[in-house]
Amino acid sequence: MSFLFKKTAILGFGLIGSSLARAIREQALATMIVCGDTSAEVCRKALDLKLADAAVSDLAEAVKGADLVILAVPVGAYAEVMKIISPSLAKGTLVTDVGSVKQSVIESVTPHLPPGVVFVPGHPIAGAEHSGPEAGSAGLFNDRWCILTPLPGTPEAAVEKITALWKACGAKVEIMDPKRHDLVLAITSHLPHLIAYSIVDTASTLEGNTQAEVMKYSAGGFRSITRTAASDPVMWRDIFMNNREAVLEILQRFNEDLTALQRAIRQDDGNYLHSVFSRSRALKRAADDKQ
Amino acid sequence: MSFLFKKTAILGFGLIGSSLARAIREQALATMIVCGDTSAEVCRKALDLKLADAAVSDLAEAVKGADLVILAVPVGAYAEVMKIISPSLAKGTLVTDVGSVKQSVIESVTPHLPPGVVFVPGHPIAGAEHSGPEAGSAGLFNDRWCILTPLPGTPEAAVEKITALWKACGAKVEIMDPKRHDLVLAITSHLPHLIAYSIVDTASTLEGNTQAEVMKYSAGGFRSITRTAASDPVMWRDIFMNNREAVLEILQRFNEDLTALQRAIRQDDGNYLHSVFSRSRALKRAADDKQ
Repeated sequence: MSFLFKKTAILGFGLIGSSLARAIREQALATMIVCGDTSAEVCRKALDLKLADAAVSDLAEAVKGADLVILAVPVGAYAEVMKIISPSLAKGTLVTDVGSVKQSVIESVTPHLPPGVVFVPGHPIAGAEHSGPEAGSAGLFNDRWCILTPLPGTPEAAVEKITALWKACGAKVEIMDPKRHDLVLAITSHLPHLIAYSIVDTASTLEGNTQAEVMKYSAGGFRSITRTAASDPVMWRDIFMNNREAVLEILQRFNEDLTALQRAIRQDDGNYLHSVFSRSRALKRAADDKQ
Repeated sequence: MSFLFKKTAILGFGLIGSSLARAIREQALATMIVCGDTSAEVCRKALDLKLADAAVSDLAEAVKGADLVILAVPVGAYAEVMKIISPSLAKGTLVTDVGSVKQSVIESVTPHLPPGVVFVPGHPIAGAEHSGPEAGSAGLFNDRWCILTPLPGTPEAAVEKITALWKACGAKVEIMDPKRHDLVLAITSHLPHLIAYSIVDTASTLEGNTQAEVMKYSAGGFRSITRTAASDPVMWRDIFMNNREAVLEILQRFNEDLTALQRAIRQDDGNYLHSVFSRSRALKRAADDKQ
């Protein structure tokens, strides 16, 4: 049996990073896994949970001799991390990532790539409301999509190797243009998260008694719409700041559509409400059938 | 063993009406169940599924001799239904309902109540994205809240009897002021449904290719936030048209909060995003812990 990689350094050992470590170990995809995380506590947990062969807070140290480096920190930290690790990246190393935005990530990473080091940007559409290494699982990527957005001129072999990694972790792989990725994710993921945070925020500003009642009766729809509001605040701050254009574009469209519904409610226009609700229900059902 | 009611007429045999029929039968709460539904097809299904002892499209006929009448039609149809059944309601009959708004329902029902007929407004916080008699289940109300909003001067005994009915169906019962009910439900249920319909609508206006991709990658948050967009369009049209004031008030607050987030994204204000996301996460976690 031959391993896909020798030394794999995973930088950022949260939900996604630690889940990848689990999957890589379970599938025997690398001879050695190194956890690189600036939090000493996270490093300790990585070792305690036996998810890595070594764990260091010094990220430059973590990547030394690695043939695969996986960036799994919040996307706002990419440029800084690349500055730190760049001098320690050996020629022939593959760098990939798991960030939820791709255009800004490419801009942050590529200027810091030493010659002979190839970057294949990636994004597994997987996650959970919980964060941290103890929340991960080897099966997190099972049957989920992982989108790769390779740059023009990236060697085929590099893309194929990252594809093989994700497939071995159970994911289905799709190649996409980074700009398109950012637009599609703005509506499928970023806007839903923003709305979830926002509606919980609205509930939190209601006076005390009502707030308690909101929690009590949340089964009426509130609970499912706000499921993602327990997600990591730093990670999501960085996503919105790094996918500004696409998120604002989608937010603008959403605002227009919601305002039209608001106007129909105010003007007692039942026909408009009924037609939008019917159209949405049909689309939602068609989408659910496909899954 | 003594039954709580003799003849129970359930008007509107959709998800909630048919689930109540199942629960009432399973718990032996009434000697006879009559399905009253203007759709001949629904009446046929009610009999085919053995959910009712009789089923008629003539609602006045359905309530004849009933000591309990349950309104389970869309709230926009209440006044019309009351006009039809009013002459056939016997003195001593209890009328209750399952509508998602309470102030407008009280306004629609009370003018049509004959002397000696008591109305106890109710709302079980239960439901599903699916509709129709075949989608119901006897366990739908298990451990769910049912809110009663009795009018001042309603005989204790009537409220107690409806409370006993819901408790026997597995629900927890709470008494609330109708105005407060409508405000609390506007945020816990009505706004989440409006947003779900609206965001699916936004997705449906994207050009073809993107729409297919939205469906494909909906696991990123889209799927959970739009879960309720498959709900019944007529029922929800009526809810929004009958809880206009509270929904517009909550929508206004939500718009303000979402606009503030939008502004922070545009102005690159990461601190603001982080503080709102952190606050929302804390509240969401506290709420989930309570459930």
